[in-house]
Amino acid sequence: MKTTIKEKFQIKPESPVLIEGLPGLGMVGRIATRYLAKHLKAEKFALLYSPHFPYYVIVNKKGNARLLRGEFHYWKNPRGRDLILFTGDSQAQTIEGQYEIAETILDFAKKHKVDTIVTLGGYRKEAGETPQVIATATDTAILNKALNADASPSPSGNPIVGTAGLLIGMAKFKNIPALCLLGETRGYLPDPKAAKSILQVLQKMLEISVDLDHLDEEIVKSDKILEKMRQIEARRETYAKKMRKGEEDKTTYIS
Amino acid sequence: MKTTIKEKFQIKPESPVLIEGLPGLGMVGRIATRYLAKHLKAEKFALLYSPHFPYYVIVNKKGNARLLRGEFHYWKNPRGRDLILFTGDSQAQTIEGQYEIAETILDFAKKHKVDTIVTLGGYRKEAGETPQVIATATDTAILNKALNADASPSPSGNPIVGTAGLLIGMAKFKNIPALCLLGETRGYLPDPKAAKSILQVLQKMLEISVDLDHLDEEIVKSDKILEKMRQIEARRETYAKKMRKGEEDKTTYIS
Amino acid sequence: MKTTIKEKFQIKPESPVLIEGLPGLGMVGRIATRYLAKHLKAEKFALLYSPHFPYYVIVNKKGNARLLRGEFHYWKNPRGRDLILFTGDSQAQTIEGQYEIAETILDFAKKHKVDTIVTLGGYRKEAGETPQVIATATDTAILNKALNADASPSPSGNPIVGTAGLLIGMAKFKNIPALCLLGETRGYLPDPKAAKSILQVLQKMLEISVDLDHLDEEIVKSDKILEKMRQIEARRETYAKKMRKGEEDKTTYIS
Amino acid sequence: MKTTIKEKFQIKPESPVLIEGLPGLGMVGRIATRYLAKHLKAEKFALLYSPHFPYYVIVNKKGNARLLRGEFHYWKNPRGRDLILFTGDSQAQTIEGQYEIAETILDFAKKHKVDTIVTLGGYRKEAGETPQVIATATDTAILNKALNADASPSPSGNPIVGTAGLLIGMAKFKNIPALCLLGETRGYLPDPKAAKSILQVLQKMLEISVDLDHLDEEIVKSDKILEKMRQIEARRETYAKKMRKGEEDKTTYIS
Repeated sequence: MKTTIKEKFQIKPESPVLIEGLPGLGMVGRIATRYLAKHLKAEKFALLYSPHFPYYVIVNKKGNARLLRGEFHYWKNPRGRDLILFTGDSQAQTIEGQYEIAETILDFAKKHKVDTIVTLGGYRKEAGETPQVIATATDTAILNKALNADASPSPSGNPIVGTAGLLIGMAKFKNIPALCLLGETRGYLPDPKAAKSILQVLQKMLEISVDLDHLDEEIVKSDKILEKMRQIEARRETYAKKMRKGEEDKTTYIS
Repeated sequence: MKTTIKEKFQIKPESPVLIEGLPGLGMVGRIATRYLAKHLKAEKFALLYSPHFPYYVIVNKKGNARLLRGEFHYWKNPRGRDLILFTGDSQAQTIEGQYEIAETILDFAKKHKVDTIVTLGGYRKEAGETPQVIATATDTAILNKALNADASPSPSGNPIVGTAGLLIGMAKFKNIPALCLLGETRGYLPDPKAAKSILQVLQKMLEISVDLDHLDEEIVKSDKILEKMRQIEARRETYAKKMRKGEEDKTTYIS
Repeated sequence: MKTTIKEKFQIKPESPVLIEGLPGLGMVGRIATRYLAKHLKAEKFALLYSPHFPYYVIVNKKGNARLLRGEFHYWKNPRGRDLILFTGDSQAQTIEGQYEIAETILDFAKKHKVDTIVTLGGYRKEAGETPQVIATATDTAILNKALNADASPSPSGNPIVGTAGLLIGMAKFKNIPALCLLGETRGYLPDPKAAKSILQVLQKMLEISVDLDHLDEEIVKSDKILEKMRQIEARRETYAKKMRKGEEDKTTYIS
Repeated sequence: MKTTIKEKFQIKPESPVLIEGLPGLGMVGRIATRYLAKHLKAEKFALLYSPHFPYYVIVNKKGNARLLRGEFHYWKNPRGRDLILFTGDSQAQTIEGQYEIAETILDFAKKHKVDTIVTLGGYRKEAGETPQVIATATDTAILNKALNADASPSPSGNPIVGTAGLLIGMAKFKNIPALCLLGETRGYLPDPKAAKSILQVLQKMLEISVDLDHLDEEIVKSDKILEKMRQIEARRETYAKKMRKGEEDKTTYIS
């Protein structure tokens, strides 16, 4: 088995934008891309399979099992540029697999005349109430569009790991302008807040409008989990402090 | 060396069922498949070799060494559908190897006009006296057959790792209906009880009859080992509790 | 770069025996093969290179650097069957590499009409003054020759790891009878004593005669190192015992 | 994606010298090669990309992201042999990748009629004020040139890891004389002092002249960091000694 894309039906987009968001830091890219696909009612039209994904299948709600895969969704934009949205279950598990999957996606993009790529992900940072969106790109023209839509330029030296990174790096060889948007996130929990920040930049840039209310519900839930974890952490630290104190007392006492 | 199957003699099955059980959780799939092959007196007719198996040979009772391999057995069913039984020494050791071996098995199945695949394995759970059998499938028709034979539907989100999983995931591309049966098992010891549960479902589904008495002997042996391990574990815990008690006393005393 | 063999000059052996000994447990196979090559004054006639060897070069006494490699030596036997001796710097570093290198060696053996293969290695065991030699083979005929030359049959289930194992496992596909001889060794130090035991079996089997006196010098040296290590270990244990005693006293005192 | 070299423009060198220095021990090879390229005003004329580099992109000062890569620079020497300077972001991440990249560089060297290769790196040693330069080579003729330029011969058995090593090891197959120069370094910090020692040998050997003053600035900076680290280390050790003393007192007291 090679990395392959199986098309369920043919689409005829006109110079569409490809948006990519796979699982990664804070699941930011995946949450944003899935949210877009769902709320735009984009249609799943192609599936990407690869021997570089983890070697298991997952059972769906109907009780059927399927391979891990990537999914391409197509949204016919009535008022502007069409979108192809790519998300999936997993990143490639090996270095060579990462490059192979990125190249397969780019060939597919080229075939469908994609003329802009936007990859989404997380950026590790203790973010404030409104996480910032960090942008980097293949060239200054597309980068400026993101900056005009309230993104901030990425600090230099910043590494962007995985498919979100390799797609921009390799897009240059296919002459497709590509942009990467990263939402600030602590990263260890799914972070809908960072995803929302990204979607706000995207909406402005692409002149589309998506109702983000359902994402707000996710944010409320996620904030509650976070708060609970903070309380547990605080209790754990108080306890650890006490323990250390006891140890120190003991040491002092004995010596 | 590539993954290859060497046929010792040609078989002419009519739309046979392929049953797969490689080593895995609780060795459930392997125990069940080997038991079937032995008690049906199925004939070993083909061997699968792969550079993705571990790189050692094993010595048999006659003192001869052989590569790790998979083994296909053929059973000519006098009263119904023929069986091809696949088991072996090991799973593939790399991600890409897992996909390659699953694909090689499927091509071989296609060549022999297999029209149903059943993969067997373990499902990690503290099981009761009679372990349940969890089922998932490529489609609802074949899944229902298993449910009618007393299997339970798999919870959604359940990952099925290794060849048992990938075969169902990839069977879809070859248009072969495939079913996975997982016996509940604690998983860290060979578990003939879980294998028996699976065989009972299989017998009902495939309308075959296999004497399971010898498996009962295995179960008695395995229960004894388990009981011994529980006793050791209990003693270990009592001892650890005492130790912790001592430590706490000491801490309390000092601080 | 692929795994390749570069021949420095052409040899015309008549149904030679191929003896293999790469680094492994106790370096037994390598010590035995190198000793044979040196004391028979066998000629280095071919080199095996592979991208599966570790990625460094080593500097020789003249200050020149060279890739890691395998070396084939040829010995024209004036009174019997010719020998091809294979040894080298390293085993392959990946599973797939192990299979690839074993296959390359076998193709080379076939080309040179090798009709017997003997692979050498170590067998982990606390050995007595004269380590035993454990034998396993592709078939009973060749195994019996080893048993008649004072080797013992391998226990069943014994795994033979690496090139020494895979060569026997894969020799069957090329119809070359193959034998594996393993010298008992503790395994964590180069073990010339185990190598000597193997050479004694080999001499008898192949009806050749090699002066093993120089190996005895190695054994004396190695025994001295071993003795020193035992003394250090004994001191370390005495000290550790004292420490534990102190800890126990302390615990008792406090609680 | 395969390992490939993209040429930005064609060069016509006459039997040039290829100098290689990738990241490694003390970053010695990379610092030296980059310094040469910068101060000779060599032109970047070709880029090497590979799926064996880490799977991320890095953001440059303009905010644009690019793949990790190797860079070839060309310097037209007005008074002698031209130079091709190769450096880059990273070494290959897998064994097979290391061999593949080395081979790709050598094919490129052959194409451009390179007739001497010099690879640069670090040699782990507690070096004095002027680190020595250790040399090894494919043959004695080129090795002697380095020794005449104040390099010291490498001790035998010394392993040279990575591209600097494999290039010399594989250069022999392409009939290109190759030399490796290693600057003594503690290795855990970028070490411009070791790089300077190498450049002094190179200048003498190649009869070129490069102003090393800017490197001296780097050395002053690096010495300051080193001094600070030594102070921290010294304080840490004093503290650890005190702690151990306390523990020993306590033990003595109790038992």
